[in-house]
Amino acid sequence: MARNRADILQRQLQGPQAPATATQLTRQTTSAHAVRQLPRFDVTLMEHFLDNLLPFKAEVYELFRQHPELLVAEEEGLSKEEHRELVRRSLRAILAAGYSPMSFFARDHAKYFYLAELLSLVDLSLTVKLGVQYSLWGGSVINLGTERHRKKYFDDIDRFRLPGCFAMTELKHGSNVAGLQTEAILDVHTDEWIVNTPDDGAIKWWIGNAAEDGRMATVFARLKVPAPDGSGALDDHGVHAFIVPLRDDAGGLWPGVEIHDCGYKVGLNGIDNGAIRFSSVRVPRDNLLDRFATVDRSGRYSSPMTSATKRFAATLGELTGGRVGLTCASVGVLKGSLMIAIRYGAQRQQFGPPDAPEIAVLDYPSQQQKLMPMLATCYALNFTKSKLVEKYCEMKRTKDEALVADVHSLSAGLKAYTTSYTNTAIGICRECCGGHGYAAVNRLGALRSDHDIFQTFEGDNTVLLQQVAALLLKEYRDSFRGSPLAATWSYLKIWAQDSLPANPLVTHETDVTHLRDPAFLLRALRYRSARLLHTLATRLRKHSRRSGEFAAWNKCLLHVLALSRAHIESVMLVEMLAAVDACVDPDCRRSLKALADLFALDRIYNDIIFRNDDYIAPEKAKAIYRLIGSLCGELRGVAVPLVDAFAIPDHILRAPIGLSTAGVDPYSEYLAAAGFDA
Amino acid sequence: MARNRADILQRQLQGPQAPATATQLTRQTTSAHAVRQLPRFDVTLMEHFLDNLLPFKAEVYELFRQHPELLVAEEEGLSKEEHRELVRRSLRAILAAGYSPMSFFARDHAKYFYLAELLSLVDLSLTVKLGVQYSLWGGSVINLGTERHRKKYFDDIDRFRLPGCFAMTELKHGSNVAGLQTEAILDVHTDEWIVNTPDDGAIKWWIGNAAEDGRMATVFARLKVPAPDGSGALDDHGVHAFIVPLRDDAGGLWPGVEIHDCGYKVGLNGIDNGAIRFSSVRVPRDNLLDRFATVDRSGRYSSPMTSATKRFAATLGELTGGRVGLTCASVGVLKGSLMIAIRYGAQRQQFGPPDAPEIAVLDYPSQQQKLMPMLATCYALNFTKSKLVEKYCEMKRTKDEALVADVHSLSAGLKAYTTSYTNTAIGICRECCGGHGYAAVNRLGALRSDHDIFQTFEGDNTVLLQQVAALLLKEYRDSFRGSPLAATWSYLKIWAQDSLPANPLVTHETDVTHLRDPAFLLRALRYRSARLLHTLATRLRKHSRRSGEFAAWNKCLLHVLALSRAHIESVMLVEMLAAVDACVDPDCRRSLKALADLFALDRIYNDIIFRNDDYIAPEKAKAIYRLIGSLCGELRGVAVPLVDAFAIPDHILRAPIGLSTAGVDPYSEYLAAAGFDA
Repeated sequence: MARNRADILQRQLQGPQAPATATQLTRQTTSAHAVRQLPRFDVTLMEHFLDNLLPFKAEVYELFRQHPELLVAEEEGLSKEEHRELVRRSLRAILAAGYSPMSFFARDHAKYFYLAELLSLVDLSLTVKLGVQYSLWGGSVINLGTERHRKKYFDDIDRFRLPGCFAMTELKHGSNVAGLQTEAILDVHTDEWIVNTPDDGAIKWWIGNAAEDGRMATVFARLKVPAPDGSGALDDHGVHAFIVPLRDDAGGLWPGVEIHDCGYKVGLNGIDNGAIRFSSVRVPRDNLLDRFATVDRSGRYSSPMTSATKRFAATLGELTGGRVGLTCASVGVLKGSLMIAIRYGAQRQQFGPPDAPEIAVLDYPSQQQKLMPMLATCYALNFTKSKLVEKYCEMKRTKDEALVADVHSLSAGLKAYTTSYTNTAIGICRECCGGHGYAAVNRLGALRSDHDIFQTFEGDNTVLLQQVAALLLKEYRDSFRGSPLAATWSYLKIWAQDSLPANPLVTHETDVTHLRDPAFLLRALRYRSARLLHTLATRLRKHSRRSGEFAAWNKCLLHVLALSRAHIESVMLVEMLAAVDACVDPDCRRSLKALADLFALDRIYNDIIFRNDDYIAPEKAKAIYRLIGSLCGELRGVAVPLVDAFAIPDHILRAPIGLSTAGVDPYSEYLAAAGFDA
Repeated sequence: MARNRADILQRQLQGPQAPATATQLTRQTTSAHAVRQLPRFDVTLMEHFLDNLLPFKAEVYELFRQHPELLVAEEEGLSKEEHRELVRRSLRAILAAGYSPMSFFARDHAKYFYLAELLSLVDLSLTVKLGVQYSLWGGSVINLGTERHRKKYFDDIDRFRLPGCFAMTELKHGSNVAGLQTEAILDVHTDEWIVNTPDDGAIKWWIGNAAEDGRMATVFARLKVPAPDGSGALDDHGVHAFIVPLRDDAGGLWPGVEIHDCGYKVGLNGIDNGAIRFSSVRVPRDNLLDRFATVDRSGRYSSPMTSATKRFAATLGELTGGRVGLTCASVGVLKGSLMIAIRYGAQRQQFGPPDAPEIAVLDYPSQQQKLMPMLATCYALNFTKSKLVEKYCEMKRTKDEALVADVHSLSAGLKAYTTSYTNTAIGICRECCGGHGYAAVNRLGALRSDHDIFQTFEGDNTVLLQQVAALLLKEYRDSFRGSPLAATWSYLKIWAQDSLPANPLVTHETDVTHLRDPAFLLRALRYRSARLLHTLATRLRKHSRRSGEFAAWNKCLLHVLALSRAHIESVMLVEMLAAVDACVDPDCRRSLKALADLFALDRIYNDIIFRNDDYIAPEKAKAIYRLIGSLCGELRGVAVPLVDAFAIPDHILRAPIGLSTAGVDPYSEYLAAAGFDA
């Protein structure tokens, strides 16, 4: 394994050579706007700056180098059954190598999330399989259950001897979890829950691991116990989690359980999603996952939580880990997609000046302005997800309440922002690779199809963003009552109280030094969040009086979403600028600074709020537009080393048009893949 | 067939019922901003207003009702070979029903393009198969060849007895067609062309029909003849088209021809794309498609065109039809996607006011502002593509030169605009359908994957948009020399000469009557194109002097692209407003007017140029924002009839969540598809 890491390092130290024509356009250009050069940096340094678990990465990727048969992917035209079998084999290989994903999830959080990112470019179905088994099924058992559940199931879940499901979503209820209709009614005579699907709308739907593998499931159902008055009526205590068997040891369906395969999906066909109908399935009372509520032998319900709302929030709060994992995997997909598109763009040549060689497509500003802001965003997302992982670990260690709220909000917002962003980015990368991007072997299609649902599962993005805004509003209101604010949004306190328009002189300032001043950039993005928060609070107050809270919220819904996105972007800029500060290598640092500036300026230019508020005067907007263009040009010069620093080895990236074949004809792998002799 | 049409009409006359909760949010809202209602219109009237070939549509779709076995789609997990066989069977069924696609393409253009739209929702691979065989292979023979080629091949191509290819793209050359490297060298001794692939970069790539079916191909290659000076050197006359055999009657490869399957693609796996290498393949001199250039027995080259550039432009100009077809098919896909997402959104309920039933997700402004502008754009595109088809037919009839340029520009621009738009729209529709949108059976995934490459093939969108801008600039420059302007852009003459900022009072006018005044809307969009054109011409002049034309063009590339998009949008608005004027039914007309206004206002609000130029004052921008919100709310009330008017029958649309099951439980088809008993 050491030799392998050495190989990787050596390759990256050499770095790919800039293609001969990379600066052709620049040389052509003799104008005053000629593109300045960013210094070439040491890719290995950048790689270590981005990743602090590189030895673990090398180990995991080495495992797949030794098992190339596991790297067959969607492009081979696998049936869903074949793909599922492949994913099972991959998971078993990870277990056989001695890893304990359940322990990672329960204790070594950073490694768990890193694994989610690493596997995203092996096969996104494998990442999701891992998420279903360990984060959802295992996570619900250990986080919603108590010690006896943990003891009973931990090892079997870890070793995949007990594949399980997380049966929350129903046919008619996804986002509105409180509206789930499946019921678990206590039979006090037999001391059992009777789990039942009252109508077809309550059939559990999209349940991963259900169609083939699942032996048990954490089923979310309305907990109903006989009313204490003895009337025979049932008290509905709302949605709780229960462990329910699905199949016996021989793999046969459990009595009362009906399961159908959800069939082919847009992607992730390596996951066996199923639909489950329960007909009076009996399970012991102990199968209630009872960390937040218990029912005793007599059927009496009790909870340590002061209210049903709080209890429900605590239950859902334990799902935060899943969203952190999805964010990490989505960042991994974004990295891979950009690696393919940028390396391809640097070597693909098309058109050129009269009587001169063709130039690389990445030399065209149209390609640069598609790809460079995405590269900047990818770096910003990388640092922000690292921060989220760090906070998550700290939260698990300290159980600090303010941190719990902060992590909840940041994980919701970052999951929504990242997955929406990556989804769009993959499509743009495909288009940037032209026809060759459409070859399945070059992976962009499968990455998009597999990743697409990341926008929906574990919280629909539109719903998650609303949670972020709701928390911001709560903090905003609390701030008037003097309560402490969570670190992520503490700046809002300062700004929101008097969300003044900027200094009128600054509004017109167009000097590049000013435009690239971190203070200006951060101030602008913070101004935006604070302004949106302040005006939202005002509008909500006004509309609520007239139409009630529900209608008022919906009336302001676009405002709500704009606020959440703005907030996430300001957090991202903070993390990106912190990374610039933390980087000691001057060459790496200059590239990072250019990425940070491009990230922020792109947002400022493209959000009309700055113009509508006259925060940015027209001539300043035009100066920003020009600066964005020149930053894209500068970054183009280091774009290849910037993606090389993502350190995804060729045998994992696989796309023939995206390999790091420095000095080799970049089309040779592709020709070979199509069956032509070299 | 008559009964079937009657059924369709009857169903549409009844119209789907508005879901019970459709106006719940409205009723909740008692504020002054309460959503106004658009009148319910007669769906049949709208349907006839949108489509003037409805009987043909009914016939074609009836054919597929009688052959349900042809409506198996990607979701069934077909291998590429199975999918290709399905497409062949579908094509043969169309031929067996008595249609002559080659005649449609050659003479009954409107029907050909309409067929492309209709089949897009049967299977996009079938649309593309049709395009490869008739528009590309057949079209190149009849449009680039002369009478003897037409006579020899027309019937065999029409009946699919002679499947053929259009072998233009090479591994290393796509957009830059003039840079193709394949060569055809005349051997004067044998009176034959020797067709050769000089190096691997010149291997023909992505050639549809090549991997399995193709018997012949139109091969684009550099025409080389011995120099007249007898030196033995070769004169290279640039890229010409030649008919080259690929396989013999028994299906065996022709000597010197090597073909490999391009393998799985992101989508369109029903098309057998192949890569072809030629090793000195000999074909008769007559196989040069010689409409624009001939070579005589002695090897002398001659062309009726005055320059090589003009000849090449004429050759490529004959490909316009392909782009019209793609535009129509893309509009078809957009219609189908919106039907699925809007019908689903109208019946899917999630969350609601406290102690009240849940409301339809389409009642949330977040959904409305995603879907309603797309619906408005879809209508605008529908009318604009109809106009393009009309112009194309007129061009073919009159051969009018100004019309040729107009159709070339509009087809390039509209193909680029439509396919980019539809690509993004499908993704948004998928997300709007949540998890159920991810089921393959609901089709949005396959539609996106299949459609994706429409952005690239038959002209990369970024390249096509540049052609539009180049033509606009040419016309702009010509306008100063008094030459006539083509109809589509004649307004630019008036505006560009003095692209004045608007009246300062109008800049601040926020009255709804003004904001919905067609004169204001059209003026704004035309102002934008004219302004972009004028400033682009100025910038290009400045940069060209300094850096040469190639570098100047690239420096202004984003400006170029913005101009082309702006131009297309102003053309779309003209067509949309013309449709409003032409609509005699007052109820239909009110919906159309709301769609037109939303289309235009959405563009005006979202383009920062209006703010940067102070064409729109901040308070006016805010008024437009509010008006967009209320137009979305109004259109939501008629959104279902507006998609019903697309008149795509259930057996063609197929997506269970998108069917017109008025009064039936909308989930029942979906449950049945998953295997649950009704």
